[in-house]
Amino acid sequence: MSPIRLRRAERGDVPTLLTLIRALANYERAPDAVIATHADLLRDGFGPEPRFRATIAELNGTSAGFSLWFYNYSTWLGRPGIYLEDLFVMPELRGQGIGRALLADLAQTALAEGCGRVDWQVLDWNESAIAFYESLGARRTQGWFNMRVQGDESLRRMAQRSES
Amino acid sequence: MSPIRLRRAERGDVPTLLTLIRALANYERAPDAVIATHADLLRDGFGPEPRFRATIAELNGTSAGFSLWFYNYSTWLGRPGIYLEDLFVMPELRGQGIGRALLADLAQTALAEGCGRVDWQVLDWNESAIAFYESLGARRTQGWFNMRVQGDESLRRMAQRSES
Repeated sequence: MSPIRLRRAERGDVPTLLTLIRALANYERAPDAVIATHADLLRDGFGPEPRFRATIAELNGTSAGFSLWFYNYSTWLGRPGIYLEDLFVMPELRGQGIGRALLADLAQTALAEGCGRVDWQVLDWNESAIAFYESLGARRTQGWFNMRVQGDESLRRMAQRSES
Repeated sequence: MSPIRLRRAERGDVPTLLTLIRALANYERAPDAVIATHADLLRDGFGPEPRFRATIAELNGTSAGFSLWFYNYSTWLGRPGIYLEDLFVMPELRGQGIGRALLADLAQTALAEGCGRVDWQVLDWNESAIAFYESLGARRTQGWFNMRVQGDESLRRMAQRSES
């Protein structure tokens, strides 16, 4: 029997999720970027209209990693897809198939729910992650720039219509 | 009074949406990429669990463009965001503030719903669009590669766990 066990995150897992999210931010060299609180994740993930889903991976009974995702949509395919926002395995527990199990689980979910694809982003310096994803069949989608308007001040500026 | 009128798309707008989506694909040099059907958009946009929202822009009473978006989520901010999947204005109707009005509407929606940001992608050759977005305060988020697993065959391959 595999010592890896996956389970869908529930309300009581919010402290575990927050710990894993902070560990991921630390790994991505942005330890101060996490301002999300326990209340935020509880409200947005486990209320009447969940904004995300999460799966927790346990190794021999200990929380070892997680995936967190939501639905996106392709108007060309006419099908929803899965956007993987976070995938993380504790650094000291890598190399045991946990990340692969989480991605397999995600692909199974995509197939079961009629999703046409799974999308995510990877930091351009993370060569081992890129190689790992490509070994599983993922491909880099090139030819696009990612654009963002962030923060209330910038959003308020964009919200103004010059002609009105 | 502005001749531009925005309204949230409803069930009866699916034919209009499909026309606009096909026009967008044609503009993005992928005229055969749209396999979405009327039934797909009706089911996914206007059923009990909508996978997307859309706004239609009318100019002097004629459909002139649209935005189509869904929610994403930032685990670092602990807030949902808006992902703009499609933004399009009929080429012959550009330069009259329609795109800007659609983006202003989107920013207003983001503020009203407590979203921390708006994200989207732009084709790297579309210099006029990039300049337009930057003039509204958008910034390119760099340092990430976009990864994708697409299609049932690739998803089935990823769904296999080697250790099980």
